[in-house]
Amino acid sequence: MHFGDYLLSEIKKKGTPVCVGLDTDLTRIPDFIRQKAVAAEKNPWKAAASALLEFNQGIIDAVADLVPAVKIQSAFYEQYGAEGIGVFAETAKYAKSKGLVVIGDVKRGDIDSTALAYARAYLGTSDLFGENLAAFDFDAITVNAYLGYDGIKPFIEQCRKSEKGIFILVKTSNPSSSHFQDVLTNQNNLTNYELMAFFSESWGANDLGTSGYSLVGAVCGATFPLQLKKLRALMPNSIFLVPGYGAQGAKAVDVKEAFGKDGSGAIINSSRGIIYAYEKSEVFGEEGCYEAARVAVLEMAGELEKVRF
Amino acid sequence: MHFGDYLLSEIKKKGTPVCVGLDTDLTRIPDFIRQKAVAAEKNPWKAAASALLEFNQGIIDAVADLVPAVKIQSAFYEQYGAEGIGVFAETAKYAKSKGLVVIGDVKRGDIDSTALAYARAYLGTSDLFGENLAAFDFDAITVNAYLGYDGIKPFIEQCRKSEKGIFILVKTSNPSSSHFQDVLTNQNNLTNYELMAFFSESWGANDLGTSGYSLVGAVCGATFPLQLKKLRALMPNSIFLVPGYGAQGAKAVDVKEAFGKDGSGAIINSSRGIIYAYEKSEVFGEEGCYEAARVAVLEMAGELEKVRF
Repeated sequence: MHFGDYLLSEIKKKGTPVCVGLDTDLTRIPDFIRQKAVAAEKNPWKAAASALLEFNQGIIDAVADLVPAVKIQSAFYEQYGAEGIGVFAETAKYAKSKGLVVIGDVKRGDIDSTALAYARAYLGTSDLFGENLAAFDFDAITVNAYLGYDGIKPFIEQCRKSEKGIFILVKTSNPSSSHFQDVLTNQNNLTNYELMAFFSESWGANDLGTSGYSLVGAVCGATFPLQLKKLRALMPNSIFLVPGYGAQGAKAVDVKEAFGKDGSGAIINSSRGIIYAYEKSEVFGEEGCYEAARVAVLEMAGELEKVRF
Repeated sequence: MHFGDYLLSEIKKKGTPVCVGLDTDLTRIPDFIRQKAVAAEKNPWKAAASALLEFNQGIIDAVADLVPAVKIQSAFYEQYGAEGIGVFAETAKYAKSKGLVVIGDVKRGDIDSTALAYARAYLGTSDLFGENLAAFDFDAITVNAYLGYDGIKPFIEQCRKSEKGIFILVKTSNPSSSHFQDVLTNQNNLTNYELMAFFSESWGANDLGTSGYSLVGAVCGATFPLQLKKLRALMPNSIFLVPGYGAQGAKAVDVKEAFGKDGSGAIINSSRGIIYAYEKSEVFGEEGCYEAARVAVLEMAGELEKVRF
């Protein structure tokens, strides 16, 4: 199925556009998991990998019936080298086996031949001595289009072949995203992020699903609600992946404009606010970390329902 | 030693600014290496890793006395999953052991908390149950500053602590880099790439070495010589990492303007033109792949000497 149709149907099935972000850092995993891993494995990299995977699987088990998607942030796994990347891959596979749409938040972007290697890595298969095998099991990834179209084309072509998707960084959720992205250009008086929105929408225009949404989506931060409204108007056929909810400060009212008229077309991510909910909970201790995440998802879903339609 | 000073001193020591790019793709490794790997190892991922590492070590052995640096392109290793990342790390370590400056071409860029994770991964250490260990052994990495300063700051702070460097993407070597990077802005009539150059130079201004060059460098493509000249004027204190030589079409004359007045301040990368030189050689067969790479380096160094001073 076309990626846009697939993602939207899963959002509909679960009844919420909540995406759980697995930005899993070893230092914030509950002690009982860390201690078990260290007791079972002397090699610190392997022990770290074991703790990360156990925590991720626990979170996925706790939220898989509630949410359509998870977003896995590669930086947090790259910290732990090859063993960490093993967990990145295993987490994706596990989430997939639980019926979730799996987004790899890798923000890759490079020249054509290199972008092709990234596309193979995350959305296609690699040629291993004549055998085509998938290194990772993602449905979509995030990409950075600073390099222009020829760095994005290999991703789009791979998405067509394997029914996958990409989300192009348009307006990011961090405080200094305005630094470069809000600069005004001489192209129809568009800012850089609006220009990127225009590029992104047009690059995806030939690949719409039956839902009317493209396999090329956009990353648009929840922390900039006014810009989000502008972007929804500029990009009617793009699904928005919206980060910045929760720990970064955005609330449900801030993401209202990310949705199309029928309340679809956007997926709202919260990472730290969900997976580390136990840290701030007065009800759940460390042992209740998964239950705390589940409750945080239910709360977020409830908040979003108030603004979505 | 300050990264800028270190890199420039290695360039001086070796007498050339040639950087060898290890964009190693399994399908282009000579058959004798592939066959040996497959014969020794049934698991295709492990066999691939073994072939990639053997080839990389052979190339490094062949060029280590000639060049100051290697650049390892992560995409080509990510294609082969966790096993590939293992080779990425092992290649960096091996190059380091041979006295080379090792640049990780990862082009990462993200919000602050995530950039911090990337900075730890590639330029610092990760906390593994209280022990601080390095996942990768790079001297510098490439980064993408589309997200603005708060996504770059964690890298700069890590560089200060661990005497490492970054190269910010300014003007990339690919044909459609003009798409977005050449758009004119309302900031002093600068194009986007010039604006990025201005940001990059100013972000690095507090971290100059005794050479006068910063630990914050810039990626400026060899395929755009006129822009390279402009950028050298805009960024007097930035070391340029210049891709695009060879397979991408640029020649020595095109990179002339990347150097400062004393012929320093730039490192010129060629990847495919060197590591796959055997494919086009009439002298060396597959078995002579390392010798072919060595000759390609010597030729490139000779060409650059004609324009460098």
